[in-house]
Amino acid sequence: EILAAIESYFAPKTTPLAGHSALVTAGPTHEALDPVRYIANHSSGKQGYAIARALKTLGANVTLVSGPTHLPPPDGITYIPITSAREMLKACENALPVDIAICTAAVADWRVTEQSNQKIKKISGDDAPTLSFIQNPDILATLSKQGPKRPGLVIGFAAETENVESNAKSKRQRKGCDWILANDVSPETGTFGGDDNTLFLIDETGTDCWEKMSKEASAAKLSVLIADKLKLNT
Amino acid sequence: EILAAIESYFAPKTTPLAGHSALVTAGPTHEALDPVRYIANHSSGKQGYAIARALKTLGANVTLVSGPTHLPPPDGITYIPITSAREMLKACENALPVDIAICTAAVADWRVTEQSNQKIKKISGDDAPTLSFIQNPDILATLSKQGPKRPGLVIGFAAETENVESNAKSKRQRKGCDWILANDVSPETGTFGGDDNTLFLIDETGTDCWEKMSKEASAAKLSVLIADKLKLNT
Repeated sequence: EILAAIESYFAPKTTPLAGHSALVTAGPTHEALDPVRYIANHSSGKQGYAIARALKTLGANVTLVSGPTHLPPPDGITYIPITSAREMLKACENALPVDIAICTAAVADWRVTEQSNQKIKKISGDDAPTLSFIQNPDILATLSKQGPKRPGLVIGFAAETENVESNAKSKRQRKGCDWILANDVSPETGTFGGDDNTLFLIDETGTDCWEKMSKEASAAKLSVLIADKLKLNT
Repeated sequence: EILAAIESYFAPKTTPLAGHSALVTAGPTHEALDPVRYIANHSSGKQGYAIARALKTLGANVTLVSGPTHLPPPDGITYIPITSAREMLKACENALPVDIAICTAAVADWRVTEQSNQKIKKISGDDAPTLSFIQNPDILATLSKQGPKRPGLVIGFAAETENVESNAKSKRQRKGCDWILANDVSPETGTFGGDDNTLFLIDETGTDCWEKMSKEASAAKLSVLIADKLKLNT
């Protein structure tokens, strides 16, 4: 604590996001099939937690809505743990209004149509169940919708395994967000769960390809770009 | 280390399982839907890891085949990490012959019929995919099958959320194993992921209800019963 206080005293006081509020989503969501089984994904939450820390460092008032991860909640932010996509949407809506929303969470696109209250039993013989799914709420599209509560800057992430840039460009159009950060999460890239990331930033003017860097470094770079953007807007 | 050495020096040298080999499965399995999504379950692996340690303490030569957990591999055993049910079966078959097999893993009963090599895209509109599943190999039933490689004692676990004892009794018959340890894993019991367990031991003579105890304590109790059983058999 003493060390942190000394560091803080001597640190350059660049808090361009002071007075601004930011909502960050992170991690996977888990969608229950029954009391013991669920659908998950390989998101570790590292990128979102790093962005929450970076925004806080620049002075923002940060709310982090996080699915199940194994990361410690960052200090000095409002931390809201959730499990499912529906819980994440509700927590995000409760956090509005904010100036900036950054959706890094790998939200499950679907949940089963009818969640079983009891463990689904194995069927005798070789049969197996057919599960039908319904779409989960689209958190990025909901936050991007025009209206009095829309954050001034809405940023989405696109985790792709093929045609990364073109899939991400059409995602930006479809969702109505301002920026998309896209990356290739094919297993051979080691992005999900790993410490590094190779990102493309897509805005209304085109695509900016970032070099491979740590998730901490890309979070810091993004936060500076956000601060610049907000300064331009005021 | 010094403390452990002192404890070990003064501990009574009861290693009734010396010269015996044991195979333990533990944890969940993950079944991929595509490169980023998978089906998981709430098994923590704690019970199986505790049993592996307890058997080792009694002198057994232990192989632990484990799905994805957040537990450190126990010392002094052969540790084989796997992801899917099919990988777990292969690892178990490679570990044979053994004297004792204890299947604590919460193996996924099903996997999707066709795993996608690319991330399944969200469909426009409100549509969502219907996934069909096929049964995974039944590891407990496979190990229990009569034949020259059948372990002398095969023990299964039954994780139930209703009719615990009757479901477990019929499971013992169906699988052909010698003993079943059954427990109630309804979320309100806190068994999955928790440190305690309330077990029923079902063998050919009937049901023995154990009181609630730590997973370490039930592992030790089970290991002593196994040692007694093997002594009777010789």
